[in-house]
Amino acid sequence: MTAQEAYKEFEKRCRELAVIQSSAAVLGWEERTYMPPNGAGLRAEQLSYMSGLFHEKFTDPKFGELLSTVEASDMMKDPESPEAVNIRETRRMYDKQTKLPRELVEELTKTTTLAQGEWVKARKASDFKAFLPWLEKVVKLLKQKAEAYGYEGEPYNALLDDYEPGATVDDVATVFEQLRNDLVDLLGRIKDAKKKPDQGIVNRAFDVDRQKVFGEMVSAAFGFDFQSGRLDITAHPFCSGFGPGDTRITTRYNPNRLTDALFGIMHETGHALYEMGLNKDKYFGLPMGESISLGIHESQSRMWENQVGRSRPFWEYSLPQAKRIFREALEGVSLDDFYGAINYVTPSFIRVEADEATYNLHILLRFELERAIMNDDIPLKDVADEWRKRFKKYFGIEVDNDANGCLQDVHWSAGYIGYFPTYTLGNLYAAQFFAKAKEELPGLEEDIAGGYTGRLLDWLREKIHQQGQRYRATKLCEKVTGKPLSHKPLVDYMNRKFGEIYGI
Amino acid sequence: MTAQEAYKEFEKRCRELAVIQSSAAVLGWEERTYMPPNGAGLRAEQLSYMSGLFHEKFTDPKFGELLSTVEASDMMKDPESPEAVNIRETRRMYDKQTKLPRELVEELTKTTTLAQGEWVKARKASDFKAFLPWLEKVVKLLKQKAEAYGYEGEPYNALLDDYEPGATVDDVATVFEQLRNDLVDLLGRIKDAKKKPDQGIVNRAFDVDRQKVFGEMVSAAFGFDFQSGRLDITAHPFCSGFGPGDTRITTRYNPNRLTDALFGIMHETGHALYEMGLNKDKYFGLPMGESISLGIHESQSRMWENQVGRSRPFWEYSLPQAKRIFREALEGVSLDDFYGAINYVTPSFIRVEADEATYNLHILLRFELERAIMNDDIPLKDVADEWRKRFKKYFGIEVDNDANGCLQDVHWSAGYIGYFPTYTLGNLYAAQFFAKAKEELPGLEEDIAGGYTGRLLDWLREKIHQQGQRYRATKLCEKVTGKPLSHKPLVDYMNRKFGEIYGI
Repeated sequence: MTAQEAYKEFEKRCRELAVIQSSAAVLGWEERTYMPPNGAGLRAEQLSYMSGLFHEKFTDPKFGELLSTVEASDMMKDPESPEAVNIRETRRMYDKQTKLPRELVEELTKTTTLAQGEWVKARKASDFKAFLPWLEKVVKLLKQKAEAYGYEGEPYNALLDDYEPGATVDDVATVFEQLRNDLVDLLGRIKDAKKKPDQGIVNRAFDVDRQKVFGEMVSAAFGFDFQSGRLDITAHPFCSGFGPGDTRITTRYNPNRLTDALFGIMHETGHALYEMGLNKDKYFGLPMGESISLGIHESQSRMWENQVGRSRPFWEYSLPQAKRIFREALEGVSLDDFYGAINYVTPSFIRVEADEATYNLHILLRFELERAIMNDDIPLKDVADEWRKRFKKYFGIEVDNDANGCLQDVHWSAGYIGYFPTYTLGNLYAAQFFAKAKEELPGLEEDIAGGYTGRLLDWLREKIHQQGQRYRATKLCEKVTGKPLSHKPLVDYMNRKFGEIYGI
Repeated sequence: MTAQEAYKEFEKRCRELAVIQSSAAVLGWEERTYMPPNGAGLRAEQLSYMSGLFHEKFTDPKFGELLSTVEASDMMKDPESPEAVNIRETRRMYDKQTKLPRELVEELTKTTTLAQGEWVKARKASDFKAFLPWLEKVVKLLKQKAEAYGYEGEPYNALLDDYEPGATVDDVATVFEQLRNDLVDLLGRIKDAKKKPDQGIVNRAFDVDRQKVFGEMVSAAFGFDFQSGRLDITAHPFCSGFGPGDTRITTRYNPNRLTDALFGIMHETGHALYEMGLNKDKYFGLPMGESISLGIHESQSRMWENQVGRSRPFWEYSLPQAKRIFREALEGVSLDDFYGAINYVTPSFIRVEADEATYNLHILLRFELERAIMNDDIPLKDVADEWRKRFKKYFGIEVDNDANGCLQDVHWSAGYIGYFPTYTLGNLYAAQFFAKAKEELPGLEEDIAGGYTGRLLDWLREKIHQQGQRYRATKLCEKVTGKPLSHKPLVDYMNRKFGEIYGI
């Protein structure tokens, strides 16, 4: 078999894998949107069958041979050619998949499924001790996973690589450290500020049907194509890009607050625009048509949610629109007041309810603890106490119970250690990309103030979406912004924004 | 491998096949309910992959060997044991599937996909000539299909067997012939009746949201479990039983007529109750957990729609409920008037809009033509004229154009010759089953008049649903009613019902 033939067969198999995976994605989406409760058993069986089928086809040794055949050819000469990228990134996944013993995968699936159930109960009872044995089981298995993958430096690197390929714990820690110092400083100044916005404006009755209309309007204005996607309701919002022509987002509505669903929709729209912008017509199922990392994915959602959606220019255009839709609730509200209300900063226990300024502190705390756990620097039984201690230090408030502390997130019970830092990486990339976009697109904020975000989307499409996995995240950042990832653009952006709002 | 081992492996493979098929069913349902338009290409690819995967696994020669191993054992001794039934019916499908050459299957899929597109155009233009070449292609392939299957008597038998296993064209024709004579007589008397109900009562404005509420209320009252299913909207209503705990029905609402959605929901609920009543917990993917035939399936939908839903006792209970929901539209309407309106009989061109009394004539006409087509008794170019001629004879009215004539149904373009008779078989079985239920369940109509249909459902579950494919349809009919299928119960039921309504 020639390298060309092997590559053709490789493409064919990738397409088959993508069809299986996208079918599973539809089944998973339907499970969370419309499935009746008693359908859960059958759906679990269908999803498990699909993932087994995928694994069987993906780890087929013949698939590995195809990779080797192409790798030995001069098709890999230009490492940035689509062919080389597709083979390189598939090899990375193939090696990871084949390194994990089947028993470990099954044990992890079983344990994390049970652990999630136990976590729900423990959180309800705010009982860390009840969850501790499950945390121990999960961490033990994750350590085995890290060993099976292999790693340089710390075992955390092996896990982080699942979510942020190529990132290292040292690099991440360095940027996070710098960010933390500046954040703590900013939050201190905000705390002491005389001027405080009135958050009450957005905590009024907002009719849910109208929230949906306004949400779809904003989403469509950002560029979400409702011919190629839908917005539905789920308990936990998400975005799922099935494949060419079909990307779904979800939200949940709070009838007594405008911002929960609205900024949630903007956020998922950002994810969706990345999915819709990938070159799936040409590369469906191939790395060149796939997103780079969770961090880069999050940069897209955060940029549309924060840099655009929580900006003054955006609301210059959109507040009058919103007033036409939410006549009573927003009557007489000024742009300044509204802009202040949606950017109100206050320390709080729960990450998913945190404002833009405190959000990253929640992540830094988790990252530090995860890293320490994987390095055996903190005994697992002390995790709850460690959490309280650090929380008090960073946020200045006492965690009242573990449900509001280390039991609040599903991640650890689900086995997702290494996932949290991608949220803050996303915020960092978003700020750095957006700063560059403003530089390269003079008049961008005036565009946005005029209701037009199309130039930004075109820029993101060209610089990021259409690149697929050509570059790793850090390299892409340098290619797009000319600089390595830094805490500065995010800190500058926040200082400027909150400085204005809080008069500090 | 022992027969026991072979049977265990057979069960395992059947389960796998069912998981594949049910996954495809979810994808198909979602395509018709929520999928955005641009998702069509990917969805077609997913569905085609699933059907290819199913075919590959089902026609695996090893699967055939498992069947043979069990067949040669004494597990088949009792032909009505679950094991014997499962093997017997799977063998039947296996032989059919393996008899069809792959090229013929692919040619049929391709041709009928194109033919359906051409049919849509031809129907819009009411242009039979434009559709004729496609009809010719489809019929030619269906004749090849019949030859590949093999048959006794007429080739039509081979096609009929796909939808109504074991039925023969002669048996069907005999019952249909007797039915036709009595139906033509009944319709003649209705035409001459002095007393005519006022259909206008149901042709008023009925708020769609309230139609949904009332429809779900009725469906739940019949026994549809909304913990194990959903009601959604599609252009063409259908029922899809995915598997244990998950059965979906759909409808479409006409804001200016109550009956379209309402009786549609009752109809699909009847199908769903059959699916929900099958013993899928034990036999998911096995013939003992599957429906017998389209005719028996239709008997369940028709019974709930007509014998229950269009009955006087049902509306004794339900009209007061309906009046509370549709206050304005139904104000002052008497039970007699309402009962008359929902049972209004009048000849019309379109099958799917036909009333209970004329409906079967539409089917008989199609059955005669199909049979003649397959026997080369009518040249295809004369089909439209033949249709007009017979329609005039049976219904007493002239077909004004072919869109209202032989171009109205999708079936022939889709390659579904042999499907139509199952609609009337369903009506015949429904009447015969229901007559028996009334006999065995004294006070059933009083139950229904009191809003309780639970005894009927229990009876159907025990006699029909839980039997799976233990018996063929004709045998089941004898087992349940003590008699072979006959036109009499349906004719008696109609004569009594319409005799009362029309005073004839």
